[in-house]
Amino acid sequence: MSYSLPEFLAHAVALEQEAADRYLELADMMEAHRNDAVSVVFRDMTRFSQMHRDEIKARVGAIELPQLKSWEYRWRSPPEMGGEEGFDYMIEPYNALRYARENELRAMHYYRSVAGESTDAEVQRLAAEFASEEAQHVAALDQWIAQIPRPSLTWKDDPESLPPVV
Amino acid sequence: MSYSLPEFLAHAVALEQEAADRYLELADMMEAHRNDAVSVVFRDMTRFSQMHRDEIKARVGAIELPQLKSWEYRWRSPPEMGGEEGFDYMIEPYNALRYARENELRAMHYYRSVAGESTDAEVQRLAAEFASEEAQHVAALDQWIAQIPRPSLTWKDDPESLPPVV
Repeated sequence: MSYSLPEFLAHAVALEQEAADRYLELADMMEAHRNDAVSVVFRDMTRFSQMHRDEIKARVGAIELPQLKSWEYRWRSPPEMGGEEGFDYMIEPYNALRYARENELRAMHYYRSVAGESTDAEVQRLAAEFASEEAQHVAALDQWIAQIPRPSLTWKDDPESLPPVV
Repeated sequence: MSYSLPEFLAHAVALEQEAADRYLELADMMEAHRNDAVSVVFRDMTRFSQMHRDEIKARVGAIELPQLKSWEYRWRSPPEMGGEEGFDYMIEPYNALRYARENELRAMHYYRSVAGESTDAEVQRLAAEFASEEAQHVAALDQWIAQIPRPSLTWKDDPESLPPVV
């Protein structure tokens, strides 16, 4: 995974655009469910991602970027999506924040591994800088997650909550 | 998850569009790596998904569809994406076919659960029909997967291939 500078910049722009799009969805969803406090968090994250995307685009300038495949930059789906619990999972602010955190963490690991493996000095420098920004996002989300009540477990999530065998 | 007809049709259109987009990416990727046989499979799947999408759109007619969130219809990312193995995973035709199969299977389970839980007779009928189409796609992909050589395991995948401790 030793990228050229155009390859790396293409990934960085796409990752930030994806994050901005997803945060906007999450903000709208929280607003629709009358959770204004968490909606504000996601709107802030949307703005940070857009600003970072614009900074990277300024760095791109006239460099021509390669086309990427969706799986090279898209956020993962929430883990429960395929299950029978259906589409209500993300309505819980706790779950939406954890979902965002998991994807920020993934971006951080991505940037770190690029920084470690690249042979291009400019890619190394930028990737290390972006990894540290993602680490700050993870830390910010962690602070929010600590303040949000965790949804009550069902027996599916926690086998110990099952009634004891008598 | 008892959808109204517009809610169900919105999901079905989005799922088919997503499948068509992903199959096109996979077809282009296989072609770029000179695997014409597997590229043809993915181009066929692209066309089937587009045809199915157009049939569903014809059924929609003038019905106004709700906006969906990305996690309600998007394919999952390949499982290895966050790992250090980087972006080469999908170049292997076996892995690309397995990835497609997993997402078709997820769509099948989705349609089945809608068919089972809906209280709307038309939604029940359509969802059961779409589930059966997805099951056919899974079976078609299984036939292809059976013909494709499995990539050789690395020690990361298979701990037993590690050299013995002496």
